[in-house]
Amino acid sequence: MDIRTLIKEEVLAQRAYGVENAAFPVKLDANENPLAMPEELRGRFSAMLSSIPLNRYPEPGSPALAARFAKAFGVGRDQVMIGSGSDELIQILCTAVARPGAEAMIPVPTFAMYRITSQNAGLTVAAVPLDGMFDLDLAAMRERIAAHPPALTFLAWPNNPTGNCFSRERVEAILREWPGIVVVDEAYFHFSGKTLLPEFNRHENLVILRTLSKVGFAAMRIGFLIGPPALVHELDKVRLPYNLNAMSQAAAGFYLDHEEAFLRQAEEIRGWRDELFAAMKTIPGVHPRPTDANFIFFGCDFDTDRVYGQLMERGILIKNFNAPGAMRNHMRVTVGTREENRLFIEALKDIIP
Amino acid sequence: MDIRTLIKEEVLAQRAYGVENAAFPVKLDANENPLAMPEELRGRFSAMLSSIPLNRYPEPGSPALAARFAKAFGVGRDQVMIGSGSDELIQILCTAVARPGAEAMIPVPTFAMYRITSQNAGLTVAAVPLDGMFDLDLAAMRERIAAHPPALTFLAWPNNPTGNCFSRERVEAILREWPGIVVVDEAYFHFSGKTLLPEFNRHENLVILRTLSKVGFAAMRIGFLIGPPALVHELDKVRLPYNLNAMSQAAAGFYLDHEEAFLRQAEEIRGWRDELFAAMKTIPGVHPRPTDANFIFFGCDFDTDRVYGQLMERGILIKNFNAPGAMRNHMRVTVGTREENRLFIEALKDIIP
Repeated sequence: MDIRTLIKEEVLAQRAYGVENAAFPVKLDANENPLAMPEELRGRFSAMLSSIPLNRYPEPGSPALAARFAKAFGVGRDQVMIGSGSDELIQILCTAVARPGAEAMIPVPTFAMYRITSQNAGLTVAAVPLDGMFDLDLAAMRERIAAHPPALTFLAWPNNPTGNCFSRERVEAILREWPGIVVVDEAYFHFSGKTLLPEFNRHENLVILRTLSKVGFAAMRIGFLIGPPALVHELDKVRLPYNLNAMSQAAAGFYLDHEEAFLRQAEEIRGWRDELFAAMKTIPGVHPRPTDANFIFFGCDFDTDRVYGQLMERGILIKNFNAPGAMRNHMRVTVGTREENRLFIEALKDIIP
Repeated sequence: MDIRTLIKEEVLAQRAYGVENAAFPVKLDANENPLAMPEELRGRFSAMLSSIPLNRYPEPGSPALAARFAKAFGVGRDQVMIGSGSDELIQILCTAVARPGAEAMIPVPTFAMYRITSQNAGLTVAAVPLDGMFDLDLAAMRERIAAHPPALTFLAWPNNPTGNCFSRERVEAILREWPGIVVVDEAYFHFSGKTLLPEFNRHENLVILRTLSKVGFAAMRIGFLIGPPALVHELDKVRLPYNLNAMSQAAAGFYLDHEEAFLRQAEEIRGWRDELFAAMKTIPGVHPRPTDANFIFFGCDFDTDRVYGQLMERGILIKNFNAPGAMRNHMRVTVGTREENRLFIEALKDIIP
């Protein structure tokens, strides 16, 4: 039996999502918060985890937690769903709308999981290149939409890996004009300070994603979807009943209890980002792009494959996007601690010609 | 905009999976291990959790952990995938094989998530009723397979909620004859002692599921898929990169480090099961079915809707399957501690006419 004959074409065509597995002393590849949980909170956090009965299933659907976050977001309880990271919420969205022939529109380059998850769910992907400023190419998107209206459009805001927020006017034009669901992924909200949440109720096709992965809880996989009640109701049927484990539920509650401490970390990281950006600006042949996130996307006047490898040899891991076209010799570095950023800058200066 | 026009028919037709949310002093509805982690292990477990860096993503794909479990299962590393509970592994399987027109065969009654997840993924479901002994109806299944060979067949072994293991000869006939993937879900292995694992390599279409949810780690959502390397390779492309959070990975490793303690708990529960079964046998009008699991399925000569409600009033939650047909006045009770079982038996005797 050739088991591949049973597998969906879209899955067969997929390459596994590569994540660098080795341990590096300076890890600036995954847009994590470089800071551990503040010392003074750790005891309380551990005590809370220890009190969780391991032998019992987690609360299905995390209703109490969803109610707390709904209040924090300023929306109704029936407008919030919590997932095992935004990844799972993207998967639930794709699965729910994957009617025969349905399409997902994805401005590229962007977060790879939009494409991968859409294809695995059976959606056709319309990848529309960003313009020269890495902003939305509204004309190209409108042309595509006239030919085939997408069920889902994914807008990372700010965009990953380019770091910029698409212009608000263009995002709002899409929300006004598009017949399908528009997902605005605000994963990096804590570093951009920009959000469509205040105008959430003005758009009946708007879905906002948030996550705790970038503000100190990447290990726990906690993501939020804010969407119209009728949509959340349907998505709830696709969500696995026990999708969020008991410790992640507890951790999310703990975050809310102590949010100030994590927001202070984000503020500190924003300061380090500006320092890192300024330092990169001074390196000849290195062209950092303005960023609203906790990472910096940059083009280089030299071969980044070589730089990437040489950085790794020095124990520094960043992300290399080198590919033909707009991504030629582009890389992304996550903002680390001041010391990590210094090590990166020194190594980069040392390596480049 | 009517957002429902964007949603898959199969999802619209679905009802949300109901899980009883309220807290009950005696919780015998979810086939959990009634025992907390052994006292002497708790300190070590807490210390381990406290050492996990929360700000870093979990190890994608849990490779080190998968290698350890592969060894424990006696299979190759490339034959194991770890999921956020068996639920996620079922979802990955369904998503991977959901080619246009593909079908899942499901003997019923069985675990509800097979049907729900298959339909949400877009698979047609062929539900084939079990025979009068709740065993596989091979003739009916063969008839169906001749008309439309399924991509996936789900066999819960032992079956939930009926508690029995289908006859091994019939399961093996299916493995020999079926052209598609046959999933043997051994979620209750620790209570049945029966497994197809030793003959795993004799069948190229066999997938085995295991879980830690029934032996004390329900809170953590940890499931295992054991399948042919070519299949695992494809499923890996559907699996979200960070599907298992860092604490669940650590908990699964901790289970292996201390497996003996949890196996002793399972042994104790098997003893309580036999006592509970004997006690139920003595109640007039109550007909417990032989079980290989940590629960007992039973028919009653009276209206179980009433009994279910009256048990809840007394703080005892079990599961009511009352429905027209073979499930008429049937219920399922999870084996609790000796004391919980005693409370259940007393209440039942008190309630029934």
